[in-house]
Amino acid sequence: MAQRYVRVQNLEGKIYYGLLQLSLSVQVLDAPPWLQGQPTDLNLEPDNYQILSPCAPSKIVAVGKNYADHAAEMGTSVPSEPLLFLKPPTAVIASETEIKYPLQSQRVDYEGELALVIGDRVFNCTPEEAQTKIWGYTIANDVTARDLQQKDGQWTRAKGFDTFCPLGPWIVRELNPGARLQTFLNEDADPVQSAYIDQMVFSPDVLVSYISQVMTLLPGDVVLTGTPLGVGPLHRGDRIRVEIEGIGRLENTVAAY
Amino acid sequence: MAQRYVRVQNLEGKIYYGLLQLSLSVQVLDAPPWLQGQPTDLNLEPDNYQILSPCAPSKIVAVGKNYADHAAEMGTSVPSEPLLFLKPPTAVIASETEIKYPLQSQRVDYEGELALVIGDRVFNCTPEEAQTKIWGYTIANDVTARDLQQKDGQWTRAKGFDTFCPLGPWIVRELNPGARLQTFLNEDADPVQSAYIDQMVFSPDVLVSYISQVMTLLPGDVVLTGTPLGVGPLHRGDRIRVEIEGIGRLENTVAAY
Repeated sequence: MAQRYVRVQNLEGKIYYGLLQLSLSVQVLDAPPWLQGQPTDLNLEPDNYQILSPCAPSKIVAVGKNYADHAAEMGTSVPSEPLLFLKPPTAVIASETEIKYPLQSQRVDYEGELALVIGDRVFNCTPEEAQTKIWGYTIANDVTARDLQQKDGQWTRAKGFDTFCPLGPWIVRELNPGARLQTFLNEDADPVQSAYIDQMVFSPDVLVSYISQVMTLLPGDVVLTGTPLGVGPLHRGDRIRVEIEGIGRLENTVAAY
Repeated sequence: MAQRYVRVQNLEGKIYYGLLQLSLSVQVLDAPPWLQGQPTDLNLEPDNYQILSPCAPSKIVAVGKNYADHAAEMGTSVPSEPLLFLKPPTAVIASETEIKYPLQSQRVDYEGELALVIGDRVFNCTPEEAQTKIWGYTIANDVTARDLQQKDGQWTRAKGFDTFCPLGPWIVRELNPGARLQTFLNEDADPVQSAYIDQMVFSPDVLVSYISQVMTLLPGDVVLTGTPLGVGPLHRGDRIRVEIEGIGRLENTVAAY
């Protein structure tokens, strides 16, 4: 199994980056791994930590309509350039924590996505250079209040609520381009979303290059690469799971109230 | 003159919050003032520091079409609720530094605005509570690539380029609601924008309350309150100055290349 890079909080609330062992203990690093964090002698046993989102991005740059079949289900075509938007860092939550359903919306959708974690300060890089700037891969759910997205025109409110960016559970360094992304709702055996990462219109390298021509990306920043066909509504109490082969499972519950 | 709160960098690159004295020396605080920073014995003389943006926001939440006359000049009406968007923290620059004209755009506009600096963690507050959460006021220029704004639909790229959020030069605690905002281009004596802060459609308190019902605001976060009538193009080499009575002047040059 690939090395899994996590961020955790111990019982005193202290936050660490670390390596998740097969035993589920965490070997603590002395810094974020993309800032050359090295293993320490400190090990946290499973009862002594809580898993957090695997990074704490200064910004989350997301991309709309990056799978042709999802663009079509939204009644639009694929844009000629990546369509960028931002989610605020306050939207990030960890796997196994609760998505809160806002009072302002009557239609909140899941959107399973591959997330890229940036390892370096990046400005104005080529797709080839971008390849070396993507430190690793994790999973995101770009939760969206679909009714507010349509009402506002700008997507900031619809996609910016606290808890609307589940991220994790960990980061891996390598990803098979043919990896499958699937989203599962509650106990259903059949996925509501199923696609291959290489069906993206704009590949991770192209996205990072494009974004870097607009804004500097910083270590730990996150790029969400778009969702495939099959978005649909969440209801209070639902359980939603996004899986990517070679990474793992991001699983969250929608709060019951 | 009101107390002016600054953020500065000394010759070794160390960053401090401080109080700007009439002598232009800076009395250093031991923490950001909204986190109860107290004066220290350290004073920086004018030759020994460079002024930075007065805070380093974790997010910048901005509001579109918040003056009726600007909404009209954009060919739209005032929205029934505040229209939110985000600018990335990497867009922030200080007064007296350069706005970079991106190659991707042929039309970059200035937008003079009042900026609110948040002093507390704020979630789901009323307008009355919001009043106590606005720690102070500064000036912003919501620089916008107008052609890309129209092309993309989403405003993230158009408003998100590095250097597209001049902010400062300092923060004051109090603002007269009748204060005038004016923007001056190059050596022109007549302003290109001139309005009173109380002509906003949604007041600062209402904006902070509204935003806080979507996303948690953190100490040092910034809210841009919208621009009045008179937006227009910048050209390479231009000098652009936004003034607000009772705060000061935010002045930037557009890079010549």
